[in-house]
Amino acid sequence: MSRAHNFNAGPAVLPLEVLEIAQKELTDFNGTGMSIMEHSHRGKAYDAVHAEAVANMGKLLGVDDNYQVLFLQGGASLQFAQIPMNLLLPGQTADYVNSGAWASKAIKEAKKIGAVNVVADTSKDIPTNMPDYASLNYTKGAAYVHVTSNETIAGTQIQQFPKTEAPLVCDMSSDILCRPFDLKQFGLIYAGAQKNLGPSGVTLVVIRKDLIERAPATLPTMLQYRTQAKENSLYNTPSTFGIYILMLVSRWLLAKGGAAGIEKINRAKADKLYAAIDNSGGYYRGGANKACRSIMNVTWRLPTEALEEKFIKEATAQKMIGLKGHRDVGGCRASIYNACPVESVDALVAFMKDFQAKNG
Amino acid sequence: MSRAHNFNAGPAVLPLEVLEIAQKELTDFNGTGMSIMEHSHRGKAYDAVHAEAVANMGKLLGVDDNYQVLFLQGGASLQFAQIPMNLLLPGQTADYVNSGAWASKAIKEAKKIGAVNVVADTSKDIPTNMPDYASLNYTKGAAYVHVTSNETIAGTQIQQFPKTEAPLVCDMSSDILCRPFDLKQFGLIYAGAQKNLGPSGVTLVVIRKDLIERAPATLPTMLQYRTQAKENSLYNTPSTFGIYILMLVSRWLLAKGGAAGIEKINRAKADKLYAAIDNSGGYYRGGANKACRSIMNVTWRLPTEALEEKFIKEATAQKMIGLKGHRDVGGCRASIYNACPVESVDALVAFMKDFQAKNG
Repeated sequence: MSRAHNFNAGPAVLPLEVLEIAQKELTDFNGTGMSIMEHSHRGKAYDAVHAEAVANMGKLLGVDDNYQVLFLQGGASLQFAQIPMNLLLPGQTADYVNSGAWASKAIKEAKKIGAVNVVADTSKDIPTNMPDYASLNYTKGAAYVHVTSNETIAGTQIQQFPKTEAPLVCDMSSDILCRPFDLKQFGLIYAGAQKNLGPSGVTLVVIRKDLIERAPATLPTMLQYRTQAKENSLYNTPSTFGIYILMLVSRWLLAKGGAAGIEKINRAKADKLYAAIDNSGGYYRGGANKACRSIMNVTWRLPTEALEEKFIKEATAQKMIGLKGHRDVGGCRASIYNACPVESVDALVAFMKDFQAKNG
Repeated sequence: MSRAHNFNAGPAVLPLEVLEIAQKELTDFNGTGMSIMEHSHRGKAYDAVHAEAVANMGKLLGVDDNYQVLFLQGGASLQFAQIPMNLLLPGQTADYVNSGAWASKAIKEAKKIGAVNVVADTSKDIPTNMPDYASLNYTKGAAYVHVTSNETIAGTQIQQFPKTEAPLVCDMSSDILCRPFDLKQFGLIYAGAQKNLGPSGVTLVVIRKDLIERAPATLPTMLQYRTQAKENSLYNTPSTFGIYILMLVSRWLLAKGGAAGIEKINRAKADKLYAAIDNSGGYYRGGANKACRSIMNVTWRLPTEALEEKFIKEATAQKMIGLKGHRDVGGCRASIYNACPVESVDALVAFMKDFQAKNG
């Protein structure tokens, strides 16, 4: 097999080691004569997988007795609604930072539920940008403050999380566990699994326990955090195979030294790619303001759209996949999540130099 | 590998052929150098999988231009809420048949949303039972009528669907595509995939197009059927691997002759098992009233609970998995979904005879 260089924004590259374990076990998990997909979510075999996934996520994220790890479904898109349904009560206001496309979607859904105060809006800035979170004018007594740690389309990332009075809620879909952070700053974090954690179809939520009970009991049972919190995410059948892969990814990440270990690798990869952009004499232009560049999604432009098209076409022919920028912004983007090997970044950097030499 | 006889109620047995294809392709889908899990949900490779899954489900279920196939997340449990959120408007009443544990859950959620009329209740009948659906007193002008085609815990199944004036909505989680039916009788059918369609984490919804637009636009975007209907279930990232397996299962089912083909096999399996119960001279007693026996979940009792425990223990030692009845009702249960091989049923029948001879 010739492995592709996978720069997809999500679903994205997974560790080859994880895929190989899953492949080996696919028809016969642990000598049970059944695939993990065929095991009951209430049986011993899956129970061990589920427990390890919860425990490993806890270890990696620094979960203590005040927090709980949940595995839900519906992606971040469902969380955009579920968060205000659970946490934004009548008469309350929630603060939102509009840092781009994903934050905008979260705001749109929150406005359907209750009062929203957009405390900053950098969604239209070019080059793409993020506000100075520490100096924003947050609402006194807000139900929560919602931020998006990384904007995949723009290629921007929060460099330092603010300390807010109200519970800080963060969409970490595209950069969870790419670096260490202090969970105690947060009331709730959430992430679709399909970028840094596993396959699509699993949503990780880590919630501070006092917030679990905030929701009105009149909410649909499946949309109350307390439902899955009480049942350790087994109120109904979860995405068992997805959680199994997430568990294997969590093992892989622990072996890499956890968030601190992978951060070093991630920064080295991002540094190489940003250097290739910055040292190109203006041939490649970074899409994001340098102060808020993402180490997960690197965006850049070429001198013309025709060259961008040629670049992507030739890169694809060399098995570099997923380099087309999001249709909303154009240009190029390389998503270099945790599982993206440094060899893929090296190949891309070499290709960029070669392409410029031939088309400069 | 020694394959287990898997009688799990769900997640459940999958066709070995499907697992073997998935295993072969797991690290390299169609020569792309990437797992299907690593492909973008907006890329060519996954797009073909998604399109085939939709098309095959359409063929198998008799979908025409008046209906649309959706792949959602959250299981039937989320549908219990999403259905009334979309279809039960203020001032309207929905009819529900309470045929057991699953119908009861659906009713509980609907009551949170609007007015519910329980037109029949057989949930407490022993032996378990179902009403005569054709003769029920449905509400004039109801928003819809909700039924549960198969109750996994009780082991009962609707033998003939009623023709109702209001749109008929049916939870088919545990028996979808076990037999042909006329989709035109229904306004909406839904099923968690983890029994007859694939792994957990995918919910199939087939909805009549006029019902898609009934929901108020004030509903959260992700909870409106119109959102995923407009985007062919790709508004956000779906459970791509789950849909891939479901697509492989749909291919397998088409090769078996579709719903009509598999029904013959299913009836033959169920007949063998019910005969083993009925011909045991009362040693095994069927859990469900004969008139509404399920061909998917066969339930029975032994003379004592101690014998039931011994039966399950010895069967498990012979790699017959999942025979313990649901904790709410006790006894034994064999779930013999589409993918359960006849060999597994034969092994169970032989074991039942042997056990009775030794413990009669």
